Amino acid sequence: MLRHIQLNSCGKLNHLLSMEGLPKSTILDILKRANDFLTFDDGILIKKSNNLFGKSIFNIFFENSTRTSTTFEIAARRLSADVINFNVATSSTSKGETLLDTIDNLAAMQADMFVIRHSKSGASVLIAKHINKVAPHIHIMNAGDGSHAHPTQALLDMFTIQHFKGDFSTLRVAIIGDIAHSRVARSNIHALTTLGSPDIRVIGPNTLLPSNLSDLGVHSFNDINSGLSDVDVVIVLRLQNERMTSTTLPSENEYFKLFGLTEKRLLNAKPDAIILHPGPMNRGVEIDSNVSDGPNSVILTQVTFGIAIRMAVMDILNNS
Amino acid sequence: MLRHIQLNSCGKLNHLLSMEGLPKSTILDILKRANDFLTFDDGILIKKSNNLFGKSIFNIFFENSTRTSTTFEIAARRLSADVINFNVATSSTSKGETLLDTIDNLAAMQADMFVIRHSKSGASVLIAKHINKVAPHIHIMNAGDGSHAHPTQALLDMFTIQHFKGDFSTLRVAIIGDIAHSRVARSNIHALTTLGSPDIRVIGPNTLLPSNLSDLGVHSFNDINSGLSDVDVVIVLRLQNERMTSTTLPSENEYFKLFGLTEKRLLNAKPDAIILHPGPMNRGVEIDSNVSDGPNSVILTQVTFGIAIRMAVMDILNNS
Amino acid sequence: MLRHIQLNSCGKLNHLLSMEGLPKSTILDILKRANDFLTFDDGILIKKSNNLFGKSIFNIFFENSTRTSTTFEIAARRLSADVINFNVATSSTSKGETLLDTIDNLAAMQADMFVIRHSKSGASVLIAKHINKVAPHIHIMNAGDGSHAHPTQALLDMFTIQHFKGDFSTLRVAIIGDIAHSRVARSNIHALTTLGSPDIRVIGPNTLLPSNLSDLGVHSFNDINSGLSDVDVVIVLRLQNERMTSTTLPSENEYFKLFGLTEKRLLNAKPDAIILHPGPMNRGVEIDSNVSDGPNSVILTQVTFGIAIRMAVMDILNNS
Repeated sequence: MLRHIQLNSCGKLNHLLSMEGLPKSTILDILKRANDFLTFDDGILIKKSNNLFGKSIFNIFFENSTRTSTTFEIAARRLSADVINFNVATSSTSKGETLLDTIDNLAAMQADMFVIRHSKSGASVLIAKHINKVAPHIHIMNAGDGSHAHPTQALLDMFTIQHFKGDFSTLRVAIIGDIAHSRVARSNIHALTTLGSPDIRVIGPNTLLPSNLSDLGVHSFNDINSGLSDVDVVIVLRLQNERMTSTTLPSENEYFKLFGLTEKRLLNAKPDAIILHPGPMNRGVEIDSNVSDGPNSVILTQVTFGIAIRMAVMDILNNS
Repeated sequence: MLRHIQLNSCGKLNHLLSMEGLPKSTILDILKRANDFLTFDDGILIKKSNNLFGKSIFNIFFENSTRTSTTFEIAARRLSADVINFNVATSSTSKGETLLDTIDNLAAMQADMFVIRHSKSGASVLIAKHINKVAPHIHIMNAGDGSHAHPTQALLDMFTIQHFKGDFSTLRVAIIGDIAHSRVARSNIHALTTLGSPDIRVIGPNTLLPSNLSDLGVHSFNDINSGLSDVDVVIVLRLQNERMTSTTLPSENEYFKLFGLTEKRLLNAKPDAIILHPGPMNRGVEIDSNVSDGPNSVILTQVTFGIAIRMAVMDILNNS
Repeated sequence: MLRHIQLNSCGKLNHLLSMEGLPKSTILDILKRANDFLTFDDGILIKKSNNLFGKSIFNIFFENSTRTSTTFEIAARRLSADVINFNVATSSTSKGETLLDTIDNLAAMQADMFVIRHSKSGASVLIAKHINKVAPHIHIMNAGDGSHAHPTQALLDMFTIQHFKGDFSTLRVAIIGDIAHSRVARSNIHALTTLGSPDIRVIGPNTLLPSNLSDLGVHSFNDINSGLSDVDVVIVLRLQNERMTSTTLPSENEYFKLFGLTEKRLLNAKPDAIILHPGPMNRGVEIDSNVSDGPNSVILTQVTFGIAIRMAVMDILNNS
């Protein structure tokens, strides 16, 4: 189902909602297009393009996230599109209105694309199905919905891995943290699987590891040293502070002691392993500063690639 | 007075503050210009124009309203103007500053137009009078002031009625809801009167109907079935939740029982009657979903027309 | 030190952080460039320029200030730059992240300039030093950091003084208010000293006057009438309401009685003295309405000049 809602009848990308259901060729097309928006002569630079001149992109954030909203805004501006930021989270008049009424109203204002962020899993799929009926010319980009999916984050992670490691077919990748509640982890597991990574691992306390992962061929580790053994790529997740108050986790200190990524633990990985983090970082909680600022870290490069990836998705949606 | 403050010495529109005082010819000019910004070939589409390229429009919202602010921003962008959103409601530094000092400061930043939203009735008239003295080149658009006026809403309602019904001179129009506190109702009554509607009705509980309406030739109804009898147009007002706590209204359920627009009640109107609502809707309070989503509803078309109307007003002000 | 961090190896302005350390020639260059962006034929008008077309300016506000943010946004737009407003103060995801991690992330999104506002003194210097290491192509503009500096405010004040008074070398200038906590006062004292004003005075209660001012050749006055004697320029500071609750100040009424600028007190100054205020004003607290709206006030002209000054700084940084 997540395939047919994302691709149109010609098989082209019509909405970007989830990594689940996206064909390998579509993912590789996006990575290739992102590369076209970058130059690598004098450091990494993002090009300016006129491809979306005259187009209107609405950033519709039902959940407040200034940073994510900004990355989509920058990508849209780099493509010369108009951007309207509509922060539903702080909009008082939207109280009492249904989600789909809000969407219908914004669609009637004549946008070309909606970037949607929502705290409920599946919100972007619901919206895409509805838009297909009422305003089929509008493309939906999911900027994170609950614990479901965060496809542009996964795409920028895949772009980063491809840039530094080339071929996916031989890679060992470990993801550390709260896998159960993480849309980033879910999206990355789907993307890595589709791109053919043979060894995907998740590392965390049992309370934060979902039980159905073995169906996806993912290996679970409670011991970080075993999990990191000989990996090429380490994806460190942000520890959400709100989870910390619950019974699933004792304290930040405790977490760091067991799962914080330190230089010593990193010695288990391959010497040229790369470290990714979706940001913003909690230094000394999920990652030690020696690692985040060390030679294996590509965390800030991810941010730059994230702009190029969002440009690539917008550009491809615009041509579908 | 509301005529001379809105028109310049040549009789051209200089500020848009209220439907009261606007000549019929001015209203018709705006409706005609809005039509020029639309195409109807393949669904309703809004054109892009360069008419306000290089002009600066400031959205100055003393009262928070993300949605209304967005509609003006989109209209300005469609005309290629620069838009500055200045949300006074959330500006801490403006605390302790007078209204006119804030206006003087923003005028000194060199805008071409101010879009003003304020919780106090008459605020936009006060500002326009002041601007005429200190910065007469700036045009004021009232985006809603207290319970006084909301002229762009009335204009988009008139445009919608004209689009679907043509001539105003034979129309029966009913407005349902909290007439006493509604700037939308006030503005619509003035507009309909000027445009020559022979039968204007308001429907609501006595506590929400102002006493002076018969002076304007408006008929009041407490019974919704009688009020809807043979009408061509029904304008349903949003029920403001804050009124619900007062002694004027018992509860949302009670209101829906007495005044909610249902399919059954709509049978009293003409079969081709159109239903308008300024949004956002409280489904099951002032309107039933069968009606808002039914064949007589033109509620989402209003939203699209609202962009065109705001473009028309900006374009006409720019040429005055 | 504040010289070398602001100028590059060729002596050109690379960051604008503080008036302290800026050579006289650099200040005069900025004032001259600002003048190029203004016309004086038919009132004071700000020109539109393409000088920063395609450049990205990020407004990064760790401290909320809608008005200041707006002035930088307008200046950037007048130069045809793209502006990204990033309000860290209201960004929830930035909680727990370090200042420099936030800066690194925004730098990785590829800006050309950062406009920084922060409640901590020295924040902009810290950021500029860091940026020189990680992203040396980005220029930093300080839009106010704690009680340290507010250089664009000082520059627009200098521009205003130069416009109305010409030569600095004969001017008596008085600054009234909470000197000890005011970045505006500090920046103005440095600017006036560099530009050669022979007589700089501060007026206020002893609790609000710093002790080290005599080192800078500044004269302190507790009596406003003596302080204003024969001055050419009066800079009235905004009284911050939060100070009022502390033990340093009794009440607004008390302050007005002792230090409020009234017409009577202004008689001590030269008849053609000009009155400046950084805004927003507390009428009846630090200044009487007769004075702020009187013939000696140039307060609103300052606002217009403020846009031109910010354009000038951006344009000069862009060419460094």
